Formats: sequence, C-alpha cells, structure tokens
Amino acid sequence: MREFLIDGLQYANYSEEVFRQMREGGVDAIHVTITYHENFRETILNVERWNRWFEQYPDLIFQGKYASDIDEARRTGRTAIFFGSQNPSCIEDDIGLVEVLHALGLRFMQLTYNNQSLLATGCYESVDTGITRMGIEVIKEMNRVGLVVDMSHSSERSTLEAIELSSRPIAITHANPASWHPAGRNKSDTVLKSLAQSGGMLGFSVYPHHLENGTQCTLQSFCDMICRTADLMGIAHIGIGTDLCQDQPDSIVEWMRVGRWTKSVDYGEGSASSPGFPVMPGWFSDNRHFGEIAKGLKTAGMSADDIDAVMGGNWYRFFEASFVSQSTLKGRTN
Amino acid sequence: MREFLIDGLQYANYSEEVFRQMREGGVDAIHVTITYHENFRETILNVERWNRWFEQYPDLIFQGKYASDIDEARRTGRTAIFFGSQNPSCIEDDIGLVEVLHALGLRFMQLTYNNQSLLATGCYESVDTGITRMGIEVIKEMNRVGLVVDMSHSSERSTLEAIELSSRPIAITHANPASWHPAGRNKSDTVLKSLAQSGGMLGFSVYPHHLENGTQCTLQSFCDMICRTADLMGIAHIGIGTDLCQDQPDSIVEWMRVGRWTKSVDYGEGSASSPGFPVMPGWFSDNRHFGEIAKGLKTAGMSADDIDAVMGGNWYRFFEASFVSQSTLKGRTN
Repeated sequence: MREFLIDGLQYANYSEEVFRQMREGGVDAIHVTITYHENFRETILNVERWNRWFEQYPDLIFQGKYASDIDEARRTGRTAIFFGSQNPSCIEDDIGLVEVLHALGLRFMQLTYNNQSLLATGCYESVDTGITRMGIEVIKEMNRVGLVVDMSHSSERSTLEAIELSSRPIAITHANPASWHPAGRNKSDTVLKSLAQSGGMLGFSVYPHHLENGTQCTLQSFCDMICRTADLMGIAHIGIGTDLCQDQPDSIVEWMRVGRWTKSVDYGEGSASSPGFPVMPGWFSDNRHFGEIAKGLKTAGMSADDIDAVMGGNWYRFFEASFVSQSTLKGRTN
Repeated sequence: MREFLIDGLQYANYSEEVFRQMREGGVDAIHVTITYHENFRETILNVERWNRWFEQYPDLIFQGKYASDIDEARRTGRTAIFFGSQNPSCIEDDIGLVEVLHALGLRFMQLTYNNQSLLATGCYESVDTGITRMGIEVIKEMNRVGLVVDMSHSSERSTLEAIELSSRPIAITHANPASWHPAGRNKSDTVLKSLAQSGGMLGFSVYPHHLENGTQCTLQSFCDMICRTADLMGIAHIGIGTDLCQDQPDSIVEWMRVGRWTKSVDYGEGSASSPGFPVMPGWFSDNRHFGEIAKGLKTAGMSADDIDAVMGGNWYRFFEASFVSQSTLKGRTN
C-alpha cells in the first residue's frame, strides 16, 4: 500500500469538481483554510457551508478530526478535510473560543495574517515585537486542547518565540526557504532549523509568489529546493502545503489581504500591476497533480521512502501527535 | 451492579459543592440546561463556562456526548453532563446552527419556552398554531444530526404535531400529567399516550409548580402518580427530570420568564405575591436525594426492575438511540 497523500494547506473555491479532482489525485487528507478575517459568528457560517458540502458529497469528502480519520478516508476512498484558520480573528478577544473551535474541528490556527494581531506580529509589519501577553496565554490553551500553532504568515521573532513558548511542535503549513526565494513570506534558515529541532513541520508552497521565478518556476528547481531543505531540517520535518487557491475569484485575494483593516488597497505579495491571484506553475494547478511532485523528487534523487514521507507520511505522524488534547495524551478518555 | 441513575433535566447554579453532591448521590448523568433566551454567541459563552468547569473539576464531571459516556462516568466515578437548550434562541434564525450546536454537544432543544417561537407555540400562548414552516425543517435537521426535540414548555397541538412530524422519538424532559396537577406546564393524557406510542420519554418534574400541593406535595403522592403514569404510558417511557434549580438567585427565574421579550414582568408559573423560585419539597432538594424517590417508588409497590428503569435505565436507552446522527445509525462512521 502506498503511503498517505496529504496536503498541508489549501484554500480553493470548492465545488463538486474540485472534490472529484481530490479523489482522482488520490488525496487522502487536506488541511483547508475556512476563515481569514471573519469573526467567530462569520467563521461559524463558513463551518456551516462545509457542513452542507459534507452532507451533499458524503462519497467524496468528510470532516477529519483526528489522524485516524485519514485511515478511514483511505479505507472508504474519500478525502478527509481538516479545518484551519489563517488569522486569529475567529477567536476575537476570547480565549474560551480556542476550545470551542477545536470542538468544531479547527486543527490549525495562524497567530497572525501579515499584520500585527492580538497574539503576535505579522510578516509585513516593520517592527516585530514577538508574542504578546494574550499570545502567551492562547498558545498555552492551543497546546492544551490540540490546536496547532501555524506561523506561516508571521514574522521572524514572533515565529522563533512561538516555537520556544509552545510545549507542542508547531507548523509553518505553507512557505518556502527564503534562501531559495527571498520573499517576505518565506522563512530564514534560522527559523527552519529551530522549527525542525522542536519537532515542527514545514509545508512547501506552490503559490507562485513563494517560488523562484514565480509562475515560471521549474519542477526541478522546486524539487532540488526540497532536497536541500531535507538536508537542512531533516527528512521528518517537511511536507507539502500547496496553498492551492484554485478557482477563486480575485475578490477573495482582496479579502485575504485587506479584510476590514484598511480603506485603501493592500497588494500583499502582489502589486498594482498584478493585483489578482497569480497563475499556478504548469506542473501543479489542481489536486490531480501531486504525482508530478513525487516524480520530480525521484528525478532529483530522493529515495522512495523519503518521497513517501514528504508526500504525506510526515504530516500523518504530525496530525497524530497534534490534534488530541493534553489530557487524552495523558490517558484520560474524557 | 445497580442500574444507571440519570436526571432528565436540571438547571442549578453549579459549583464545586453541587458537583460533589452529584457524586455523593451517585448520579451518573444529567441533562443540564445551558441556555434559555441567549442567542448563539451568548450560548457559546455558556458553553465556555462549562468548559472551564470541566477543566477545573475533571475528577467530578466531564462532558457527555453519547450514551457510552455514561458507562465511562460509571467506570471512572464521575458524572457525565449532557447539554440542552430550553428555547431555540440559540439557533437564531439559522438552521445551520442545529448541526453546529450538536457538534458542540447540544443534545436536547425545546422548540419553545412558554411563548410562540419561530418553530412552534409555547404553553402560555392563547392560540396554538402548531409547528411552523421553519419548525418542520428544523425538526428534520434535528432528526438528521441527533438533537432531541423537547416539548416540555410547548402547547398541546404543537406537541402532538412534533411527535407526528419527528422521525425519531421526542422527549418531554420535565413535566407531570395534568390529570394529577392541572398546571399549564403539565401534559394531557392525549399527549402522554401519543408520546409513549411514538417511543418518546417523559421526565417527572419535582419543581413545586408542577406538583400537587406544590412544595407540600408528599413523596407518596408523587410516587403514586408515577405508578399511574407507568400504567398509562408503559414503564419504558418514563424517567426522572427533576427541574432542579438549586442555589439559583431569583434574577435567574426572571430571565427565564422575561428574557428580552417584554418590558413588564411576567410571572410565568409564579405570581406577584410569589415571584421567585419556589421552595423544593422536603424529600428532594439536591442531587443526594434521588434515593428517596427510589424508596418512595418501592413503598408505592413498584418492582425493583421497574424502579431501575425509571431512575435511569430508560433514559440510558433513549440517549443511546437519540444522540447519534442518522448516517451513523446507517453504519457510516463519518
């Protein structure tokens, strides 16, 4: 039996067609973003939208809550969908919502999305003050219930402090090494080494703004970068986190970047001349194309076992260790 | 091993003392009201309060979600707490919140609390129009996810229609036969027989306004009434639902009755001369006193097996059949 195929982050405009592509591509599990700047009640509306999809397409997808659901997905030929948030807006100013959202299946939460949040500093702020007083408390609570700290859109100091403060391994679900492509969203070797030493995970992004030469990035360049990062971090700490935004209208990337925090336009990783979603590279544009990456890794000289680990095995073990509560880890079943 | 001891409804002012009394009384499971007129977000704050209690007193209580948690409660010497709502305010005007609240552990929801709601007619309205258009849809959704329809505070026609419309048995968690004590909240023999025929459950209330002679009601009168109701409904369809409001300040009964629907005072079952919580009968005032009811039933001539069924066995089987989703009933695990 082949190893699991797991994507560490997507935010597509989901539809029956996309769900069918997941099955065609043999994707066992996906961490999907369900919310950015939405407050708690708005996030619940997004949960409801997913609930309707789960009800409409029970033969293609279902909600994943624990790693065992990935086994269930494989057994029943479906894709397990795990929820995540790219900003802490969904917990508003209320630490009690961490446990409530975990009970509803939230499994990853970024402490920031580009800007300063109540918890930490985003990667586009000019001053990085690290984890805030509330951030310290929220990380503790996330650790307790089994909600993974995701620092993909956070700044350097905040990320290093989150790694240090968190009693459980954290994730950078979708980013690449800045040494390969020096974008504000990509990560320094210091961060990547610290992440790996703490048992954390990096998901390699296929989003053009995170790639060397953007849309023109070659599969070989991407896979060579993965091999070098395996050398830097160790093979056990890397996976895929495509950041696939398939079929999204440009109004969505505007919401992601602008939310309700400014009345003017913020282009984020884009620019005035290219404000919309960038075109994906030819070798990866939907869920049927993971095989291309696996092939590219083989061409780059990676062993079959290591390719399995990168394509899903590592995420499986990380999900297994991360989503249960601390009391469950201690052997209490309730 | 003795049968389970389960209370079908309480709304006490919970505290470590009350939780310790549950353990002293050997109570395995309780359906507690967590919300009345609170909207969704306010209900979530109440969930959060319970989450803190579960975190503070893990050796006394934990959240019950399925009947198997009652076995776990017995095995670990704790009380399983199941959530319920006495009004549909918590789903606001949004049917999607039925599944969301079920995911958070809500297991009972009254379609009305005394007044007309978006779903049905309350027991104090002068005209009873039955289940509304939205009510029909919401009952279907409650059936699908495994959220029990509770008609304790509903009117006659609405209750009969809910029994008819619901594809799964419903409950009247806390009320008594009107033939014994003709209060607006107590139920006609027509309702009780229809409830039993559909597989539903009645929980006998110890709240003085539902008792013959109120606070002065004797244990004998209460237990004789239970025996007569067993003859009317069948022994399998009755349990206890004390409506224990222990330690609540009178401001709470005012919120229960008045919510935000009137600027004047509504005394509900009380009166201007006696607006607060009534004094409980001497033989039942807290969770240590369930043994008195069991003894009273023995004195009234009930068999040991029947007493076990009334004190918890029937609720156990009802919980077992009611809280899982329809897809789980059909054998799908996700």
